[in-house]
Amino acid sequence: MAADMTMTPAAQAASLADGCADVVTVAELEARIARKGRLTVKFGVDPSGSELHLGHAVVLRKMRDFQDHGHRVILLIGDFTALIGDPTGRNEQRKPVSRERIEANMVTYREQAGRVLDLERLEIMYNSNWLRPLGFDELLRLTSQVTVARMLERNDFAKRYAAGLPIALHELLYPVAQAYDSVAMEADVELGGTEQLFNFMLARAFQEHAGQPPQICMTSPILEGLDGERRMGKSLGNYVSLVEPAEQQFGKLMSLPDAMIPRYARLAAFRPQAVCDALAAGLAAGTVEPMQAKKALAEEIVALYHGHAEARTAREYFERTVQRREAPSEMPEFRLAAGPQRIADVLVKVGLARSKREAERLVAGGGVRLNGEPVAQAAAAWEAREAVVLSVGSRRFVKVLPPST
Amino acid sequence: MAADMTMTPAAQAASLADGCADVVTVAELEARIARKGRLTVKFGVDPSGSELHLGHAVVLRKMRDFQDHGHRVILLIGDFTALIGDPTGRNEQRKPVSRERIEANMVTYREQAGRVLDLERLEIMYNSNWLRPLGFDELLRLTSQVTVARMLERNDFAKRYAAGLPIALHELLYPVAQAYDSVAMEADVELGGTEQLFNFMLARAFQEHAGQPPQICMTSPILEGLDGERRMGKSLGNYVSLVEPAEQQFGKLMSLPDAMIPRYARLAAFRPQAVCDALAAGLAAGTVEPMQAKKALAEEIVALYHGHAEARTAREYFERTVQRREAPSEMPEFRLAAGPQRIADVLVKVGLARSKREAERLVAGGGVRLNGEPVAQAAAAWEAREAVVLSVGSRRFVKVLPPST
Repeated sequence: MAADMTMTPAAQAASLADGCADVVTVAELEARIARKGRLTVKFGVDPSGSELHLGHAVVLRKMRDFQDHGHRVILLIGDFTALIGDPTGRNEQRKPVSRERIEANMVTYREQAGRVLDLERLEIMYNSNWLRPLGFDELLRLTSQVTVARMLERNDFAKRYAAGLPIALHELLYPVAQAYDSVAMEADVELGGTEQLFNFMLARAFQEHAGQPPQICMTSPILEGLDGERRMGKSLGNYVSLVEPAEQQFGKLMSLPDAMIPRYARLAAFRPQAVCDALAAGLAAGTVEPMQAKKALAEEIVALYHGHAEARTAREYFERTVQRREAPSEMPEFRLAAGPQRIADVLVKVGLARSKREAERLVAGGGVRLNGEPVAQAAAAWEAREAVVLSVGSRRFVKVLPPST
Repeated sequence: MAADMTMTPAAQAASLADGCADVVTVAELEARIARKGRLTVKFGVDPSGSELHLGHAVVLRKMRDFQDHGHRVILLIGDFTALIGDPTGRNEQRKPVSRERIEANMVTYREQAGRVLDLERLEIMYNSNWLRPLGFDELLRLTSQVTVARMLERNDFAKRYAAGLPIALHELLYPVAQAYDSVAMEADVELGGTEQLFNFMLARAFQEHAGQPPQICMTSPILEGLDGERRMGKSLGNYVSLVEPAEQQFGKLMSLPDAMIPRYARLAAFRPQAVCDALAAGLAAGTVEPMQAKKALAEEIVALYHGHAEARTAREYFERTVQRREAPSEMPEFRLAAGPQRIADVLVKVGLARSKREAERLVAGGGVRLNGEPVAQAAAAWEAREAVVLSVGSRRFVKVLPPST
């Protein structure tokens, strides 16, 4: 695909920079587009295997933007260091990954990333191609271009050094290797999360030293997880995967705190900033109903990965099976006598069925629930040991209390 | 040469440890000798070219001790890093050295070191043999075995880091490379100056990690230069080269401050510690005459590099040409009249010659000096513009004063 000639370099640079946390610099991006047309855009991934989620999608979307403007987007697979793992063996999460495992992981990765990227136009590179033959002499030349103090300024290193926590010397070489990747690829742009800015800037220094124009560094904001607090991540369980079923995505998104709606509108639905600001203002003023806003947002996000029809279906599924099942805050109460009894009898006693026969029919139809869980057997003996909500359909609720003691 | 069977391992270890600044540890040295007999002893040199002096001889002597006990002493030439030089180009003293230059320097080095070492039994190795093919993966494994904080504990790094002076990252890799040399050589012992102890200890860690018994680290004290204050070094001009002529060595050694006599007796003449202690006590008590002690010491040191006969000759030369020429602190004075006059006439006037003829004969014989400088022409016109010492032979002096104004 040829370079995008439909926009001025200035307009294109502004569009590409939109939504980024850091861009070093927009002026350079514009100048590079003007001079070169089609840019080489680097995005590095660790091939140790991961389920992609909405947090990853923030930067994947930016890659897609570059693809849509006709740039050469390269997925750089950091296989060299993955093959080594953590040489100390202390880091369980950095065990060596086999070549076969890496290949398998990257197939899965492509599959998932394909929900956002145009795979036809996505190039893949492996950094072992240049890091394996990198000699000690070349490494000395590279490392001579940066000071130890500068390396220790990197946020995570600075914290650990200040706290007296050990930093192994090889850890300082990983950013060097990553920065050298940009030299080997002659990258014009590098994309990643905000925590990568230090490494990206190091690459600029190396590129200038190698006589290359320094890459433009563009970082994407970090998306908070469904808890609204910590970074979205698989280990925290606060994530929405790109490939999970539409209903599941929708349901998870509906658990988002209301305060996060504008943020997700920006970083997960990619609405323009002004639209998100207006949404935030409306929510604050009470002119926008949070439940409606969240459902619209969830449907929009799900549509990005499953299309509009599936997103619509997911919303309806949610409304039918989850939302209407929610118990009202006030309902009649009924205190049962002691001892086990059949559910069908209880339904009649509390007034949810007019007869034992109707009660049995309701249970058989799947409409009877105890604390939201369907009741399977009308004849099952049951005893209320604590307060539970007994419901029929989505509208009729009774709070059943245990016998008074 | 086979391992030394004439001493017990304990006696041999004690003898080899004698005179060292640090030994880590004597017990290990003894055990290694007991187990292995013949040890591999490493001594690394920078092949950037240097004139060897008495400061270098301290450790060369220790190497010779190991040779004399039948061990395998290896001169390790750090050609790999010398070929690279300082990659920043900022360090004038660490310019890249060519392969040819390194070879030439090592020929010179061997020649000089041969004044102490048995060259027949000296092995030579080049660290480029294993550092050039060292891969980035292997380097990551090595560097993972040490922390940044540990590296910054090294004396020179700690000072610079505390002072906010830049330490380039590659500087941290040189000690790693040096320590890896010990792994590649499977060194049992490493010898060097006290400033090397940090690097030596790093090698122990690497060797243990590689499943090798860790090397015994033995450092030699640093010899002060002829000024008695700063480390002996060529740039300071306070050195005695191993290959300069015997007379020159003797003369330089005689300029040593008296207080340094016991230290040089220990580190340059290698007298036993007890003998040096007694010498220091004698000097302090005034029972040993410093001039005699220093001449005996100088003769002994010169004999190490030129043999006893030459050392004796050097001493006599010194006594004849330097020492006896020294003017006594009291001598007759003679104030000359104004205006130039012939030296021969002056000699008669001040009473150093009985006749003009005798004066001319004395000048022709080379025995007449002005401030210690031989006078060539008896007929040369001369005028005293300041007080000078006129002498005949080594015994007769007159202070000649300029005309009173």
